[in-house]
Amino acid sequence: MDVIEYTPTRNDYAYTFGGVAPVMRVKPGTALRLWSDDAFGGALRSVDDLSSAKVDLRFVNPQTGPFFVEGAEPGDTLVLHLVALEPARDWGASAAIPFFGGMTGTDRTVTLQEALPDTTWIYELDRDRRTVGFVARHSDHRIELPLEPMLGTVGVAPAGGEVRSSLVPERFGGNMDTPQMRAGSTVYLGVNVEGAMFSVGDGHYRQGEGEACGTAVEGAMTTTLIVDLIKGQAPGWPRIEDDTHVMAIGSSRPMEDSWRIANSELVHWVSALHGLHTMDAYQLLSQITQAPIANVVDANYSVVVKAAKALLPDGAAFDGIHADLRARAHHLGAV
Amino acid sequence: MDVIEYTPTRNDYAYTFGGVAPVMRVKPGTALRLWSDDAFGGALRSVDDLSSAKVDLRFVNPQTGPFFVEGAEPGDTLVLHLVALEPARDWGASAAIPFFGGMTGTDRTVTLQEALPDTTWIYELDRDRRTVGFVARHSDHRIELPLEPMLGTVGVAPAGGEVRSSLVPERFGGNMDTPQMRAGSTVYLGVNVEGAMFSVGDGHYRQGEGEACGTAVEGAMTTTLIVDLIKGQAPGWPRIEDDTHVMAIGSSRPMEDSWRIANSELVHWVSALHGLHTMDAYQLLSQITQAPIANVVDANYSVVVKAAKALLPDGAAFDGIHADLRARAHHLGAV
Amino acid sequence: MDVIEYTPTRNDYAYTFGGVAPVMRVKPGTALRLWSDDAFGGALRSVDDLSSAKVDLRFVNPQTGPFFVEGAEPGDTLVLHLVALEPARDWGASAAIPFFGGMTGTDRTVTLQEALPDTTWIYELDRDRRTVGFVARHSDHRIELPLEPMLGTVGVAPAGGEVRSSLVPERFGGNMDTPQMRAGSTVYLGVNVEGAMFSVGDGHYRQGEGEACGTAVEGAMTTTLIVDLIKGQAPGWPRIEDDTHVMAIGSSRPMEDSWRIANSELVHWVSALHGLHTMDAYQLLSQITQAPIANVVDANYSVVVKAAKALLPDGAAFDGIHADLRARAHHLGAV
Amino acid sequence: MDVIEYTPTRNDYAYTFGGVAPVMRVKPGTALRLWSDDAFGGALRSVDDLSSAKVDLRFVNPQTGPFFVEGAEPGDTLVLHLVALEPARDWGASAAIPFFGGMTGTDRTVTLQEALPDTTWIYELDRDRRTVGFVARHSDHRIELPLEPMLGTVGVAPAGGEVRSSLVPERFGGNMDTPQMRAGSTVYLGVNVEGAMFSVGDGHYRQGEGEACGTAVEGAMTTTLIVDLIKGQAPGWPRIEDDTHVMAIGSSRPMEDSWRIANSELVHWVSALHGLHTMDAYQLLSQITQAPIANVVDANYSVVVKAAKALLPDGAAFDGIHADLRARAHHLGAV
Repeated sequence: MDVIEYTPTRNDYAYTFGGVAPVMRVKPGTALRLWSDDAFGGALRSVDDLSSAKVDLRFVNPQTGPFFVEGAEPGDTLVLHLVALEPARDWGASAAIPFFGGMTGTDRTVTLQEALPDTTWIYELDRDRRTVGFVARHSDHRIELPLEPMLGTVGVAPAGGEVRSSLVPERFGGNMDTPQMRAGSTVYLGVNVEGAMFSVGDGHYRQGEGEACGTAVEGAMTTTLIVDLIKGQAPGWPRIEDDTHVMAIGSSRPMEDSWRIANSELVHWVSALHGLHTMDAYQLLSQITQAPIANVVDANYSVVVKAAKALLPDGAAFDGIHADLRARAHHLGAV
Repeated sequence: MDVIEYTPTRNDYAYTFGGVAPVMRVKPGTALRLWSDDAFGGALRSVDDLSSAKVDLRFVNPQTGPFFVEGAEPGDTLVLHLVALEPARDWGASAAIPFFGGMTGTDRTVTLQEALPDTTWIYELDRDRRTVGFVARHSDHRIELPLEPMLGTVGVAPAGGEVRSSLVPERFGGNMDTPQMRAGSTVYLGVNVEGAMFSVGDGHYRQGEGEACGTAVEGAMTTTLIVDLIKGQAPGWPRIEDDTHVMAIGSSRPMEDSWRIANSELVHWVSALHGLHTMDAYQLLSQITQAPIANVVDANYSVVVKAAKALLPDGAAFDGIHADLRARAHHLGAV
Repeated sequence: MDVIEYTPTRNDYAYTFGGVAPVMRVKPGTALRLWSDDAFGGALRSVDDLSSAKVDLRFVNPQTGPFFVEGAEPGDTLVLHLVALEPARDWGASAAIPFFGGMTGTDRTVTLQEALPDTTWIYELDRDRRTVGFVARHSDHRIELPLEPMLGTVGVAPAGGEVRSSLVPERFGGNMDTPQMRAGSTVYLGVNVEGAMFSVGDGHYRQGEGEACGTAVEGAMTTTLIVDLIKGQAPGWPRIEDDTHVMAIGSSRPMEDSWRIANSELVHWVSALHGLHTMDAYQLLSQITQAPIANVVDANYSVVVKAAKALLPDGAAFDGIHADLRARAHHLGAV
Repeated sequence: MDVIEYTPTRNDYAYTFGGVAPVMRVKPGTALRLWSDDAFGGALRSVDDLSSAKVDLRFVNPQTGPFFVEGAEPGDTLVLHLVALEPARDWGASAAIPFFGGMTGTDRTVTLQEALPDTTWIYELDRDRRTVGFVARHSDHRIELPLEPMLGTVGVAPAGGEVRSSLVPERFGGNMDTPQMRAGSTVYLGVNVEGAMFSVGDGHYRQGEGEACGTAVEGAMTTTLIVDLIKGQAPGWPRIEDDTHVMAIGSSRPMEDSWRIANSELVHWVSALHGLHTMDAYQLLSQITQAPIANVVDANYSVVVKAAKALLPDGAAFDGIHADLRARAHHLGAV
């Protein structure tokens, strides 16, 4: 299988889902290797680079794409299999951006209090040990953390002619900021416009669930993925499948609504896939799901609801396309 | 170490945290083996037992206790180490109670729609295989699920003279419904009244995160635990420690506030324990926490925020009492 | 009609709903004239009295009561008609209590930011002009505001043996903090325990909707009210009737749930009272209700939903008891 | 003053804010008389027209516009003074759309329950009596309700290149669904793109606060308004001024965040306009604001926070442009 490489220049980035002309047309079955810049567009390179001076929140999460998928029509299911995610720089950055994050008043949860101190942390990458290094700003603590690369944003153009900022997670995917978006995962997204118009970005060298301070270890990323397409069967909300789990992701406010969305999506998925009555799927999933929070800091909060395939009846989602993509990925050198 | 056994009779149960006379006085260091009935008081024994007929939501989660801990005063830290949890019956029950649960209108999220069908499921226990059996009500599906015993409710008397239903999770613990409340865990609760007045109940043979339908695989439980006491140092909200993680649990509404509470509690705990500046603790935890939802169905929603000790600086919480309790538990036969 | 006067001494106050012995037994039909202290127990008497030094949030809203209403049983409807509310001091106090209020992080909506500055304002009462005087703390502005006395807290003992702080608004009434609780209003509360055990307190010389900073113009109050009782017919949530409107009050979190509760209560009330199908009541009320926020600062947020009687079909609530109470109040000198 | 009349044809409508070419360029100072269709595009004309059959929620609230305002640049303040709103048809329609509205599960607050019955109500207009007639669907009740025309949607193009559905209320205005948007009101909106690109639609012959069932008495409307422009001074969120009050409108989720936004906007407005310290403005507004809910049914919930000018220090907003516009409106025949 050939791999098409694509590295955008600064002017090639998109800052929205929808509303942007495609950078390339790709056929279903294509493998892509994509370079994406970090959430800050590379603006934070030392602890002296402050987000208040160097980052414009209207232009973060630069998107590599969008890609026009040939044959994709509204109601279809875009399939993206993440083959490999490799850091494209030797350092990542994180920041406590004033009035942004989970433990501060924001432009929504408005308070009259002063902002937390604008602070930047730089994490050095150790490629041999596969770690990133936390260095405290106010003491001598240093801690090596496992490298766990993921993508914060994977999305398609929204429905109804909407155009949304690359800060937004929603029904169309987008800035879901979940650690589940990693190598080995297959993402299913409902197609809303001709060509689907997907893009990726916001690489994280690692991220805690919740992304509490508002930013992960943000880093430029080289993403290898396989694009595929299923006619029809569009899920209502983003779904992910890996070797062990099926998952759905809800993004809304308040956070219980994000959970409700994800849980409902999974109930209906499991019900349809395994021939369970809705009430039986509701009951079974009540006893087996995991529900990790993805983020509590974006324009919408995201929650993942996931179930182990081993605890579900037999039956492969989307006719087993995940296993098929895993096999294809091996030919590309995936582990 | 001796173990004091206690099995309540039907009239011995409490249905509130606070407001009830103690069933026993115990000294710090005591090991207890406690029998607790299931959330329904054993009322659902077949799929024909419907919650609308047999369950009064004002009297669920019967509590075994409260226990008066000698020497415990407001501001102290009650320590409960769960040594072993063993199912006390050969079956568990779950139910979709009308207008109760995460995927239905409730008495808070009121809608004008009809209730979901009142439905009961019975799970048979296989002690050899350590499984409970899901049996679909509307088809022939049967699935064996791993037995993973936990306690839904562990709490003390509230502050300020309040008395709360055993359905409520709050600052005093209570009905947190998290799978983290399992054998091997040490729970830290702030003491609000003389004697702490703790109780346990609401055993679950297993539960998914979120407890989506409102009930777990509810089952009578035999709980072995060690009671201990730390003078002062009361945490603001419940904390749990096991061999690998430190955790805090927030319970409020909306769910983002539950997360904020838990995350803040963990930031301050880690900051104080490891000598990290608050902003550094905020940053470090942002990259390493897990944030599993506990329940989205109780009077308050509960969220756990947890961090792996391996990714934190050296330093044992509460002077290493968890390790000490683990050692003591081994003498009681814990694994 | 005789009026029973009652002025508590400092040790007579209650700080909870439920859990307290009655101060007096009263028969339905009794008129009471009650003195209540302000929310701070009179602790803030000058702008130099700071809440952080003088107020313990566990002991605010001192309640005058509880009163045992003879004949009141669970399922009955307690009726309190507010005849007159008169300021019992010549000044009121308001404060921005650290980490308390609507525009600051709180113990629920926890942030890591610094508190707003602890500030106290004193309002002088002009009894002739019926005004209270706002005096800016940081400039020379002074503004006369109309005196509009109301009670922040009116409640009964909760159900299920619960005891709740006088800071809490809930199904049992309590700290609803709505300007609708004023002279001329009739309050209907479901009785949960024998004797109902109602209490009042937290007088406000005036308050904006939302009670944004967390406190109103807090003032000691002399409240004249008539107690009555309807057997059965307990409303699900507090209801208020005045000469022009019927109202329901929901108190929960998030605030949309408070609204849902109040709106549902009013839909069912109007449906039953006027013989409208639920869907027709839902439709009609959708076009005529007002929905003023009561508070966004208490343990639960409160929302009032109200409808003008003039826009509803004929039919007097509770057999016209409000009109009857108005007539009885006139004999007491009410306007 | 001349008035430019504009009546769109079916193909002229916009269904988004942003992303649409202007239908006309207008100079500041221009008066417009605009015809707008109802929220359903006129599809519901009898009680037998059901929304599930005739309404596509992706294409509701057809917008008349957008209008390009000459000279308007990002950071400016668009001023729209509503001179007159007159029903353009003799009937209005309302509907309980399945899974849409405040008292039902929705696509956000997802439940597994059945939908409420899809129901349509038609209101006949009596122009002489200035009423609309409610006719119950399930009984013989008929009630005349006062005609109180308002616009559900008034908005400009969003910032950051976003395009939003005409169902959405946000920082750019949009589908705020507040009864305050009526004749005599002046609306202030921050300009985000060159020309501002404002549009109006979603006329309501009347609406209760909350718009509980999801729809008002929806009706085609003839709106007369004056367009004006203030250079700079863009408010953060929509503001309204009428003869007696200044107001701000927040639209987000959960509803407490909508209130926080509106309250903060008003605190900062009053603080800047009247020279009050932020803490003094916070205190003063806490005692005088009204906080009517606008809607609990849209993509975001909207809350209005308003203050009577009579209770504020002297000082006219935006140099008294509202009074000036009222005078200009009189020349157009406004009352």
